[in-house]
Amino acid sequence: MANEWATFGADLHLELRGPRLRAGLMDALREAVRSGRLEAGTRLPSSRSLAADLGMARNTVADAYAELVAEGWLTARQGSGTRVARRAEPRGAEPRRSAPRRAEPRRSAPRHVEARPGIGSAAPPPRALPRPSTPAHNLKAGTPDLASFPRAEWLRAYRRAFTAAPNEAFGYGDPRGRIELRTVLAEYLARARGVYARPERIVVCAGFVHGLMLIGQVLRSRGVRDVAIESYGLGLHADLLTGAGLGTPALPFDERGTLVEESGPLGSAGAVLMTAAHQFPLGGALPPDRRAQVVDWARTSGGFVLEDDYDGEFRYDRQPVGALQGLDPERVVYLGTASKSLAPGLRLAWMVLPESLVGEVVAAKGVVDWVSSAPDQLAFAEFLGSGAYDRHVRAMRLRYRRRRDQLVAAVAAHSPETRVSGIAAGLHAVLALPPGTEQEVLRAAAWNGLAVQGVNEFRRPTVPPTLDGLVVGYGTPPDSAWQSALQTLCRVLPPTPGGTETDTW
Amino acid sequence: MANEWATFGADLHLELRGPRLRAGLMDALREAVRSGRLEAGTRLPSSRSLAADLGMARNTVADAYAELVAEGWLTARQGSGTRVARRAEPRGAEPRRSAPRRAEPRRSAPRHVEARPGIGSAAPPPRALPRPSTPAHNLKAGTPDLASFPRAEWLRAYRRAFTAAPNEAFGYGDPRGRIELRTVLAEYLARARGVYARPERIVVCAGFVHGLMLIGQVLRSRGVRDVAIESYGLGLHADLLTGAGLGTPALPFDERGTLVEESGPLGSAGAVLMTAAHQFPLGGALPPDRRAQVVDWARTSGGFVLEDDYDGEFRYDRQPVGALQGLDPERVVYLGTASKSLAPGLRLAWMVLPESLVGEVVAAKGVVDWVSSAPDQLAFAEFLGSGAYDRHVRAMRLRYRRRRDQLVAAVAAHSPETRVSGIAAGLHAVLALPPGTEQEVLRAAAWNGLAVQGVNEFRRPTVPPTLDGLVVGYGTPPDSAWQSALQTLCRVLPPTPGGTETDTW
Repeated sequence: MANEWATFGADLHLELRGPRLRAGLMDALREAVRSGRLEAGTRLPSSRSLAADLGMARNTVADAYAELVAEGWLTARQGSGTRVARRAEPRGAEPRRSAPRRAEPRRSAPRHVEARPGIGSAAPPPRALPRPSTPAHNLKAGTPDLASFPRAEWLRAYRRAFTAAPNEAFGYGDPRGRIELRTVLAEYLARARGVYARPERIVVCAGFVHGLMLIGQVLRSRGVRDVAIESYGLGLHADLLTGAGLGTPALPFDERGTLVEESGPLGSAGAVLMTAAHQFPLGGALPPDRRAQVVDWARTSGGFVLEDDYDGEFRYDRQPVGALQGLDPERVVYLGTASKSLAPGLRLAWMVLPESLVGEVVAAKGVVDWVSSAPDQLAFAEFLGSGAYDRHVRAMRLRYRRRRDQLVAAVAAHSPETRVSGIAAGLHAVLALPPGTEQEVLRAAAWNGLAVQGVNEFRRPTVPPTLDGLVVGYGTPPDSAWQSALQTLCRVLPPTPGGTETDTW
Repeated sequence: MANEWATFGADLHLELRGPRLRAGLMDALREAVRSGRLEAGTRLPSSRSLAADLGMARNTVADAYAELVAEGWLTARQGSGTRVARRAEPRGAEPRRSAPRRAEPRRSAPRHVEARPGIGSAAPPPRALPRPSTPAHNLKAGTPDLASFPRAEWLRAYRRAFTAAPNEAFGYGDPRGRIELRTVLAEYLARARGVYARPERIVVCAGFVHGLMLIGQVLRSRGVRDVAIESYGLGLHADLLTGAGLGTPALPFDERGTLVEESGPLGSAGAVLMTAAHQFPLGGALPPDRRAQVVDWARTSGGFVLEDDYDGEFRYDRQPVGALQGLDPERVVYLGTASKSLAPGLRLAWMVLPESLVGEVVAAKGVVDWVSSAPDQLAFAEFLGSGAYDRHVRAMRLRYRRRRDQLVAAVAAHSPETRVSGIAAGLHAVLALPPGTEQEVLRAAAWNGLAVQGVNEFRRPTVPPTLDGLVVGYGTPPDSAWQSALQTLCRVLPPTPGGTETDTW
């Protein structure tokens, strides 16, 4: 009756409930596994087709799958699709490690799942384990070390700014943001990132995505159809542009980075979204000739470069390259954020706009009067103006650099096969893996309680898979958890050249 | 050459620049007046036709006109349209009170403008005055007394919450908002407003408009076409719904308040936006039978009531009527805010959602991951949980009540013709004026440096004008400015019955 390899039945009704679609889908899938409706080994529909069935964004489904792979509920293998993992057994009242509730305990568990749960040296024993909880180790990119948030300094800045704030600061504000903040930001961005910034061109927003959404709306209402994006990047950003009615053709790339030739997708695009200083996630810096080339394209075509400078403050081998925006402030929209340098929880980011866009962006923002809380803006202005921000960035730069050096050394020692690619910058590194091994390594990571993502999770749907690698967010764990996370990472990497079994790939 | 009554020439090019469209339009109009391109007495196009010419929202133009009337640059009279005011003379290098730069000083200034600049007792002398600057007195509704913001208490709450915050609070958060805040909000709203609130149904947002925009998106994507609105209200809210692709038919009203019969616009609407506890701006409370009726409509039609409870904490003659939401939490979306009770600058508001909407609203919000700053949310949770919020609301209730009593007494003494309408609640009152006198009183207010709005500025475009009145925000000025604002208000009201010259109305 229970067909182990059964295709996901059309009669299986997932009830999408709860607060977040992705979380809801994950809950539903977990519950289906837990209850036995989805049995071990069952192949799930592709994220694309499930997304179509559910009327959801494909990335939402793909993200849910990826999370559940990371949590150990599912496995994903090239050529074999996404399946229910062996270990994710029905959770009943029975004690741990007792026989599973269902009658077909390991009747025909796919051999490779049991026999090769991980390719590193610390693979778990081939037996049913209790349900995985939150991963023990987190090396997912995108979040800074939150334990290093400079609480005392921030609180001091907040108190100072709050005490000095005029009454009108508590009222409805200028949609561009507080002038105090825009003034110090202009000075800081010019000094630290080479941005041509004047306060009247700065718009404070509640995160990079808020800024991107506003720009997307403005471009769309100007008649722009396509915003070109890089081949690898955050699906959320592409979704946001799509949601604004824009097409998002992916730019091709070569070993030097993204190709910005007019003969490519740029030819018909009205703007291009780029992580020029530190490509996310691949980690390269756009070479100087291409920096000039993309700005020239914008000049001659009347297009805009949207520069996502998410971690521009963090460069370890040299002085950071200045922002692209400095090359042409009238054609480059600079987008910066405190989410990586300080903390995402503050919801503070900023745009520096070409003069021609200021009015429209502010009108788009002003319609709903969204501004970050005025006391926060004033606190950040004080934090920035007092030098506390510079001190924090310097301290974090040392800390992240040390972690990156430790990562490079540990990988070299444990997995000579694996290459650390990209520039020495930011809060993450890419470990280039032997072709075809990414999914296997990810599965091993999940088995070992390590949350980490593969480069292919960031690949645009239209881009063919040519790279295998891990995106390691070494900024994420607190100091206390860093060493054990690093050790776990090393255990799941291919141990020696040729040490991976390649027969099944 | 200069035709004093010339229709606004098609060859006059307004350059819309600067950060905000409305502000930009105002700047352009001021500049056109200042430079002499628009001469005194010139009739401006209707807000509707200028809006069409400029591709702007009609309300944006109407608001700009209204502001410029309030500032004294323009005059608006029923039947005569909006014209450039006599006093707004070209500002050249010449000293004040010298002859105007142009050759036609007062060649044929419309007599009523010069002779009847205000109908109260403090009308300015009929001569050219220097350009009006920021109004000296502000009785515009919508902002609480910012000078009363409880700084010490808030700072204490912020410090306590900040110090106790877990590291993860600085990360990317739950799009619903911090659980600490949602938990205390649920308790507070149940206690203070009779809201059926559970933390998992609460979504924290960055202001009422943010919440309304999310709901609008969700309703639209569910196929709802129309959201009915009240005959008088904020144009911004209607614009927001329109921007989400929704129609906004206005509900009729009678002397008891808004009519919520199914035979009206409700019949084809999927939702209705209401200020049931205290109609904004007219000031009535929806009678109990109509409260029941609108909820019944929602039940039988499957529609939703969007309850804008912007100032529900402030009632002076009795205990506040509980929120409509308590009648049916599955059909009423409750929207509350700290903007009136505390300060708009905090950007803190909340929705309590029917269970069926939670997932969709959070998905709409989650796409862009907008949350208010986590430290702010935690501070507000502490502020609320410690009782500081209750204490502040109690203190402000006394203060606003006293101001309202003073307003009622002063109006009764100075202008027996004028009636204070609406319930004793909130931060504003409506002064019902003799038919046809609103614009005249507004102009007198502008002459006297008093910023205040007429009820017709809040009238939906499709609703015929039947009411005249002033919307007086007695919560707005700080204590130090209140008495003089009140005195100025009394000076511009009709002084005695029959004292207004009605021949021109």
